[in-house]
Amino acid sequence: MMSTSLFTRHQSSSECAARRGELATRHGIVQTPVFMPVGTQATVKAVTVENLLELGAQIILGNTYHLFIRPGHEMIERLGGLHSFMNWHHPILTDSGGFQIFSLKELATITEEGATFRSHLDGSKKFLSPEDAVGVQESLGADIMMCLDTCIPYPADRQQTLEATALTGRWARRCRAAQRRRDHLLFGITQGGMFPELRKESAETLIEIGFDGYAIGGLSVGESKQQMHDMTEATVAHLPGERPIYLMGVGTPEDLVEGVWRGVDMFDCVMPTRNARNGTLFTSHGKVVIKNSRYREDPAPVDEHCRCYTCRNYSRAYLRHLFVSREILAYHLNTIHNLHYYVNLMTEIREAIEKDCFASFRNDFYGRLEGE
Amino acid sequence: MMSTSLFTRHQSSSECAARRGELATRHGIVQTPVFMPVGTQATVKAVTVENLLELGAQIILGNTYHLFIRPGHEMIERLGGLHSFMNWHHPILTDSGGFQIFSLKELATITEEGATFRSHLDGSKKFLSPEDAVGVQESLGADIMMCLDTCIPYPADRQQTLEATALTGRWARRCRAAQRRRDHLLFGITQGGMFPELRKESAETLIEIGFDGYAIGGLSVGESKQQMHDMTEATVAHLPGERPIYLMGVGTPEDLVEGVWRGVDMFDCVMPTRNARNGTLFTSHGKVVIKNSRYREDPAPVDEHCRCYTCRNYSRAYLRHLFVSREILAYHLNTIHNLHYYVNLMTEIREAIEKDCFASFRNDFYGRLEGE
Repeated sequence: MMSTSLFTRHQSSSECAARRGELATRHGIVQTPVFMPVGTQATVKAVTVENLLELGAQIILGNTYHLFIRPGHEMIERLGGLHSFMNWHHPILTDSGGFQIFSLKELATITEEGATFRSHLDGSKKFLSPEDAVGVQESLGADIMMCLDTCIPYPADRQQTLEATALTGRWARRCRAAQRRRDHLLFGITQGGMFPELRKESAETLIEIGFDGYAIGGLSVGESKQQMHDMTEATVAHLPGERPIYLMGVGTPEDLVEGVWRGVDMFDCVMPTRNARNGTLFTSHGKVVIKNSRYREDPAPVDEHCRCYTCRNYSRAYLRHLFVSREILAYHLNTIHNLHYYVNLMTEIREAIEKDCFASFRNDFYGRLEGE
Repeated sequence: MMSTSLFTRHQSSSECAARRGELATRHGIVQTPVFMPVGTQATVKAVTVENLLELGAQIILGNTYHLFIRPGHEMIERLGGLHSFMNWHHPILTDSGGFQIFSLKELATITEEGATFRSHLDGSKKFLSPEDAVGVQESLGADIMMCLDTCIPYPADRQQTLEATALTGRWARRCRAAQRRRDHLLFGITQGGMFPELRKESAETLIEIGFDGYAIGGLSVGESKQQMHDMTEATVAHLPGERPIYLMGVGTPEDLVEGVWRGVDMFDCVMPTRNARNGTLFTSHGKVVIKNSRYREDPAPVDEHCRCYTCRNYSRAYLRHLFVSREILAYHLNTIHNLHYYVNLMTEIREAIEKDCFASFRNDFYGRLEGE
């Protein structure tokens, strides 16, 4: 499947929209469907780049908002870019900062021109236009950049959703025009809230501008799972098959399986890393809350079928001891395990699609979870 | 120098008491002089066992008090011992718990029988006799065990010091008698406070009982550097040359050089690991306080002569960013650097002794520090 074109893919059987692809970036090919660990502040929390490579991560995410605020994109650029700064010489996708600014709530104001907000660190006033968002990401040296989008609260009425979605479209056009180098890929972000016809309109607007890939934004914000799936379908149906599709900020292992089923190629979420630090570990049979006293003297690994560094070397008893003792090693070992779980799930999904057996893989996946 | 005997050593030139030795344990040979990273709660804080091996650690220390309190030595024994529990298959020295119990102050009472104290975790009442201390360490499976000693506050008068030192001697005899297996080495701990004649008496008492090695306790408790050096000399002078000598809880890089100069073979201290987590990094030219704004955009490694993982891959600017952002990776990378500095200092010291040039090494060491 290797190719010089940007994105090549192999469509799964007619049962579902899943596809197996390869996405070419300046720092190498990304095999899709893929999960991208989140490296907010120029580090994936609690692990090294060597850990990420060993557990099979292909591409990581950096947060434009956080790096813009601290240490600053100009400084990172002077130090050779984000790859060099954090010693990760593989693909990096940066978000646009839109979602983080939206999350600041009353500290942020959105106008036609861009987003005005106050730093969560020192309260200082900042401004980010769509052009700035692209400039910051170019300074960071991202392989994949995201357009600045306006996020929509949940629930939101049609008028509010329509206005925010239209503004996202106008900003997307400004982002594309601001781009100085085409070897950094630029993805557009579709919005449209919970309105299928606005999802369609958003997709069509972005396609008309033309992007290297398309993201589905504004999901996993409080809506039901059914709504998330329906809006994913409503968006994917109108996106071109020859471009990668990225479902932003999603989600649980089940969400990943369902997203792939509906044609999504890329995912990111803080869930595996954040849950690791809270002591909740993912396994093929469900979640393990490691502080539970039932694991006090349990010599078994977290998941006996798992081949991650943590499971190959440590018992549940040891991980529980580290966690209740608040040892830094607990966060490190738990994060390795959870990221391996997510990354390995995607490897299995890719293999299943290649063998045209993703439907039976999906059935088995739920069967194992229910077995617990 | 390899030998089947417990401890073989090569005495340095007549200028000083430094010696180059090899100590045989159940988990392998330890090259001395050696620095032992502290692994209080069955982990050297913020690093993995692979990191320890890569940076050259030969032997680590475990804290009997902490492991006795949580998760409990019986549990660790049932899980296969401390080596297996924490996945470190190299030598481990465990302290006796004496110093930690002493540090509990009003929560502890010392009688002829042993130490009664309250857990710092839940306030529950505990008791540890000299026999218990050995039993706990045998359960843990330590390669080198320490006798339970009574610590002496600083300053302390002659009578108080005399009584505590005499009790430490009686406890040492009980520890030796309680030992069930001779393949676990057992070290005696000399006391004697700041009184050279009590230091001598303590050494003679322990030698009469006979131990596999001898520790110097009760230093680095608030006395001057000169007092520390004098008491080290006053103790070493009365210890047998054919046994390893361990200066407990010491110290700064300068303290290590001075200890070796006076004939000490083994050291442990939380300083490199604790300072790492506080952002203070050791270099051959002195300390680097990484949060200092002068390092904000500094592309150089912490120490350009250092070959540790951190210095090979990361800039001061990146380490400063991680530290001010309170990222877990900061503690990890800083700890690797500081432990490498300590371990590498001992490697250089060993090489200097082998070449009979430790006096000039010591001069150069101070010259570099003063050059800063």
